[in-house]
Amino acid sequence: MRRYKMDKNHKMWDDLSMDLDKHDLLCEVLPQAFGDVFLSQENRPEKMDYFNAVTADIHGVRPAELIEAQKNGQKVIGSFCIHVPEEVVWAANGISTGLCSGSQFWVPGGEKKLPTATCPLIKASLGARFDRTCPFFRIADLFVGETTCDGKKKAWEILAEDAPMYIMDIPQMKRDEDFQKWEKEIKLYIDKLEELTGNKVTAESLHDAIVMINNKRRAMQRLYDFRKLDNVPISGRDTLLITQISFFDDPVRFTQKVNELCDELDKRVKENVSVFKKGTKRILLTGTPLSIPNWKLHQIIETNGGAVVGEELCTGIRYIENPVDETKGDLDTEVKNLAQRYLGSINCACFTPNTSRIDDIIRLYHEYNADGVIDINLKFCNIYDTEGYFVEKRLKEENIPCIGIETDYTDEDAEQLKTRIGAFIEMLD
Amino acid sequence: MRRYKMDKNHKMWDDLSMDLDKHDLLCEVLPQAFGDVFLSQENRPEKMDYFNAVTADIHGVRPAELIEAQKNGQKVIGSFCIHVPEEVVWAANGISTGLCSGSQFWVPGGEKKLPTATCPLIKASLGARFDRTCPFFRIADLFVGETTCDGKKKAWEILAEDAPMYIMDIPQMKRDEDFQKWEKEIKLYIDKLEELTGNKVTAESLHDAIVMINNKRRAMQRLYDFRKLDNVPISGRDTLLITQISFFDDPVRFTQKVNELCDELDKRVKENVSVFKKGTKRILLTGTPLSIPNWKLHQIIETNGGAVVGEELCTGIRYIENPVDETKGDLDTEVKNLAQRYLGSINCACFTPNTSRIDDIIRLYHEYNADGVIDINLKFCNIYDTEGYFVEKRLKEENIPCIGIETDYTDEDAEQLKTRIGAFIEMLD
Repeated sequence: MRRYKMDKNHKMWDDLSMDLDKHDLLCEVLPQAFGDVFLSQENRPEKMDYFNAVTADIHGVRPAELIEAQKNGQKVIGSFCIHVPEEVVWAANGISTGLCSGSQFWVPGGEKKLPTATCPLIKASLGARFDRTCPFFRIADLFVGETTCDGKKKAWEILAEDAPMYIMDIPQMKRDEDFQKWEKEIKLYIDKLEELTGNKVTAESLHDAIVMINNKRRAMQRLYDFRKLDNVPISGRDTLLITQISFFDDPVRFTQKVNELCDELDKRVKENVSVFKKGTKRILLTGTPLSIPNWKLHQIIETNGGAVVGEELCTGIRYIENPVDETKGDLDTEVKNLAQRYLGSINCACFTPNTSRIDDIIRLYHEYNADGVIDINLKFCNIYDTEGYFVEKRLKEENIPCIGIETDYTDEDAEQLKTRIGAFIEMLD
Repeated sequence: MRRYKMDKNHKMWDDLSMDLDKHDLLCEVLPQAFGDVFLSQENRPEKMDYFNAVTADIHGVRPAELIEAQKNGQKVIGSFCIHVPEEVVWAANGISTGLCSGSQFWVPGGEKKLPTATCPLIKASLGARFDRTCPFFRIADLFVGETTCDGKKKAWEILAEDAPMYIMDIPQMKRDEDFQKWEKEIKLYIDKLEELTGNKVTAESLHDAIVMINNKRRAMQRLYDFRKLDNVPISGRDTLLITQISFFDDPVRFTQKVNELCDELDKRVKENVSVFKKGTKRILLTGTPLSIPNWKLHQIIETNGGAVVGEELCTGIRYIENPVDETKGDLDTEVKNLAQRYLGSINCACFTPNTSRIDDIIRLYHEYNADGVIDINLKFCNIYDTEGYFVEKRLKEENIPCIGIETDYTDEDAEQLKTRIGAFIEMLD
């Protein structure tokens, strides 16, 4: 039995019935990893300080805020997917939060009940809950799953043995009738949230939430736009970190902090500052999500001659583009607008067909002035793996250099990835 | 270049632009496999002769009939899944047919475009089409895919590059609104079939088709009921073969032939004939489908002390139980009845939650007087693999012996399976 330094955080984690011994192991390795990937960078924007601080205490500050909010009667809803509209949570005076899913640390806990041949993101999610090593997984009053992929759809059933789950059935196609179905699902979700929170979702409260989240998206788009420039004033690693934090942080404060950072970047642009050496190759990533603290690929790319200038990922451009229509209307109209954005504008490989995603990749390749595309697949993600066939084929037709990479959360393939990615980047010359 | 014995079949296959060289390789190995698994059995019912003959010429007789029907203006529709209601095809004066998907022979052809980490059934399906080694995949005028699992959903996109595809989006849950959605999907499918065939689906024609397919199901149920007896008058291998043929054969003729076989089995029952030695352990299979010519597990079980007395599989009891409500009604009512049966009564692991499947397994274990359950999973089928957690858990609670087996279409694991399955059967003593 360890003896804890019973500081404020440990007290909180203990109150959350977390496994303190096990969780301390994670807390011990993260600072080193964070230092290696982030603090080692030269010429970082000063305003990254806020995001550094959030990350350094990611299982401390925000969880404490959530618990405080719960004491004031607010409910916390954890979700796993950017197809689930967070606006309705805020409109019911709830708080939406991301959940732990990005580290190999949590994978073995998930593998106790899930097949090994399941993607690491799903295994890590369940492991983080079952092993009691993620405060967000202890705090949330409700977890909202969806039927986007087989692995998640079936994993929720196992998670439901231990956690309060609510499932949204997302259509697998995007015909008119599917948009109607998704509208109906959002309405059912609103019913559930109203029941949970005791608050009505009104046209007014939903409109306010739409504007609030749109503002967050606009701030992030402002940040991402800097990556389109010849002189990129912020690294891919830093932008990824900010995006990962966007799922956890208070949206209003987060928006303000991103805008403050962008103000600093505006100055850098005027001074032609770039964090990359001239000739660094510009990479667009596409594929499966990179959730915190999964920084592996960005680190390999940006220490091997590349700059990640964009991510056609759920933890990237898919989350920030296409704000919801803000026109004031009745609740039905606003839900329709949400359905339009959340089904129509996000091109996850779970849909069939999903040619719009490839159109997006090509568009973003040009918008972000990329030199090449890396199509990343988390091992055992069948939908992105299969869709990779079309990604490669269409990009070849467009003469866009592309390489497919399959990886997981371990470091076992790090050397091999360095070699392959390094060779790909060199080839872009 | 081979020199073909240009018999009637080779002429037909040539007209279908099949790869004769490659297809001949399959034709050469099947008789041996069929002999080993089926003809080696002692005391087979005489009326198996029909099914032997159909199997021996499975790429000859039935394809020739389909081509003849096409000459008379009928359309042939190939489908991959028992959730797709074949009744509507027949009601439009079309012909419904199964497709090749059960042999390792077709897998490498599928792996050219699909991820290796895809289940062999899906890889074999695409390989059979791309390699031009399956007459049914050449003949069909339309292929009806569905969104039951990630692997299939995304594979249809690749298949659609080469074959005329139509996709039905099956709900992933079974709430009231999902039944309504499935009704709507069946109506859209009827529209498509009417357009393709030029024939109207009427309440009358749909009713006739429902009765015809119900008759087939009733004949098969009659056959399966013999397996519940202490003296089982027909082997699991033979019943599996008949079930596999049920997806291809003319339904009226097939029904008659199954009933003729059942008449013979009635006599056997009176004479207390069993094809199994006393003390043979009775096995219920559950899990992923076994499509023709996948006879591997039945062969291993029935040559290692076991008798397969039931299959809670798509190629088994799921296909034959629960006839559609036959009450005459208007088209809307009949479609509602179809939706009820095809969504409500089939408990594929693609649904969430899917506890009814485990209820089925327990019920069937008792109905078929089984001694143990083997839960089979085709490699990389994530939904059945994940659901296996609940199968094992519930059966353990019920004190029902159960073993999980993962396999593919190769013979590489045959010895290992023999050992594991043999040990499991021995343990049942």
